Amino acid sequence: MSEIRQDPTTKEWVIIASNRVKRPHDFVKKRQKRSLLPYEPSCPFCLGNEYLSPEEILRYPTEGSSSWRVRVVNNKYPALVPQGSTQLTEEADFFTKMDGVGAHDVIIETPLHNRFIPLMEDQEVEELLTVYRERYNQLSRDPRVKLIIIFKNHGGGAGTSLIHPHSQLVATPVVSAELKRQFEVAMAHYNDTGRCLYQDIIDHELKVGERIVMDTEGFVVFHPFASRMPFETWIMPKKRQTSFGKIPTKDLANLAQVLRITLLKLYLSLHDPDFNYTIHTVPVGDESKDYYLWHIQIVPRLTSIAGFEIGSGMYINATFPEETADFIRNFKL
Amino acid sequence: MSEIRQDPTTKEWVIIASNRVKRPHDFVKKRQKRSLLPYEPSCPFCLGNEYLSPEEILRYPTEGSSSWRVRVVNNKYPALVPQGSTQLTEEADFFTKMDGVGAHDVIIETPLHNRFIPLMEDQEVEELLTVYRERYNQLSRDPRVKLIIIFKNHGGGAGTSLIHPHSQLVATPVVSAELKRQFEVAMAHYNDTGRCLYQDIIDHELKVGERIVMDTEGFVVFHPFASRMPFETWIMPKKRQTSFGKIPTKDLANLAQVLRITLLKLYLSLHDPDFNYTIHTVPVGDESKDYYLWHIQIVPRLTSIAGFEIGSGMYINATFPEETADFIRNFKL
Repeated sequence: MSEIRQDPTTKEWVIIASNRVKRPHDFVKKRQKRSLLPYEPSCPFCLGNEYLSPEEILRYPTEGSSSWRVRVVNNKYPALVPQGSTQLTEEADFFTKMDGVGAHDVIIETPLHNRFIPLMEDQEVEELLTVYRERYNQLSRDPRVKLIIIFKNHGGGAGTSLIHPHSQLVATPVVSAELKRQFEVAMAHYNDTGRCLYQDIIDHELKVGERIVMDTEGFVVFHPFASRMPFETWIMPKKRQTSFGKIPTKDLANLAQVLRITLLKLYLSLHDPDFNYTIHTVPVGDESKDYYLWHIQIVPRLTSIAGFEIGSGMYINATFPEETADFIRNFKL
Repeated sequence: MSEIRQDPTTKEWVIIASNRVKRPHDFVKKRQKRSLLPYEPSCPFCLGNEYLSPEEILRYPTEGSSSWRVRVVNNKYPALVPQGSTQLTEEADFFTKMDGVGAHDVIIETPLHNRFIPLMEDQEVEELLTVYRERYNQLSRDPRVKLIIIFKNHGGGAGTSLIHPHSQLVATPVVSAELKRQFEVAMAHYNDTGRCLYQDIIDHELKVGERIVMDTEGFVVFHPFASRMPFETWIMPKKRQTSFGKIPTKDLANLAQVLRITLLKLYLSLHDPDFNYTIHTVPVGDESKDYYLWHIQIVPRLTSIAGFEIGSGMYINATFPEETADFIRNFKL
């Protein structure tokens, strides 16, 4: 029997269609293996090819060498740029628009073409997270910036043609309607109950237990109750942390380890699937409020987003998150 | 310069990133041509293979023959089924769910494997629309059904592995949060102004003119102001028609012609791109209200839905709809 489940953070419904007879191991497809060397002559992100990438914004250099560990560059085709006005204008006294003001970074995670996050040392992942936080905090000082979205596309099915490990950051002068609704849902819960909705989710996920993948001192990893896609995974801090920009340095090592192990389990058990992840965090200016917990949402791209999803906003998920969580929890590294 | 535009129906922002230097003709990619015969022995939707498809719900037979023109069958892997209760239940006194109650039809549009809508006669398209309307009205009589979503996935990039021309219908016992918000936006506009938001959109699109692709007596076809993806196309009735279920029979011939020509222009100019379309219509029970216009949204799948879109709900579109509309408007059949 299928179930219709409501995501408590969006109030959106998800159809979990078990009669589509997909079991977790059905997603372990034979994929064409990505057979990559550490250096690819034509890759703009590889060590030695820096001249191929756009203007550099930030670099973590390797001491005593001309090499580097992480670089941040402008996106070659930026969606948003710093120049322009955030004044709303109208077309035909009806349609609303503004200049495409903001920022669009590419974070080159490693000089090595084939060093995916799950294959890194924890310390390298920690440094990547430090760069995310640094750019978040630099950009959030621009009064025009209202929201900062840090995300990663891995593989063609996840929307990138460049396989060299990289993430992106987009700083926007608006809060998307979809995220605005999520913040409103969380604020309403906070006003009604005095509790953080996301803390309540962690508490109930831990109480149910079936969807937990990993539970460490600082972070919980689980496949959410209303997972939109098979193996959707959320990483959430246990401590009250509203904004990713305010994450304490002492927590970054634990987060790096949790993120690496989570991605490594997906990488090994599902044979390097394409995936996206996004860091969800409060709008700029709401950092001191308690209604939210920043967190990471990982979405492997094992099934398609089709007409039903685009047209309705609901997803049909062919597996129960209890089953995928069990599969990942029991996968031995 | 990029622009950030607001979709008046969802209040969602879309980034139109012109500096990604995509012009309409850049999407005319060399695709592997679908080279198909009218009959494919293993296809469950082909004439003569009816025993391969699930239970038949409806058939438009060919007079004086055992053949048929359109069939409706159950989805082999239904997301929702008629059995079950729409009672909400809770898990751990926190998470909300219900049985997966509803219906999930597959509409086999033609007995011929390679007869895509743009290649049909207008009369065949009209009959397909008649079947949509018939199933809509049958299912809307079930008091548990709150929303009926009719959609089409064409091609692998649009989420289907079966190329034989078919559409789907999902009847749900809930209204999705995303569509609920769209209905609320339209209702607020109606309450504030006394006018239908969608009628206002048509009026302003016609006034601006630049995004209009076709303007007939009964329907307007345009690339919306805040198009999420390149060549996104909306077909909207000019007359006040709230629900697709109530479309008058006399309007179906005009709609069929407009839909066929719209899809034919995309088919020829972009070389048979993968696409989705969805019929947007009011929730069951709201048919007599005036705040909405049913319409068809066509979304060619020429670019990816990546981490930014999944994480924020906003889209980055690499072309201006004014340019794609101009390209299609001037494409000669």
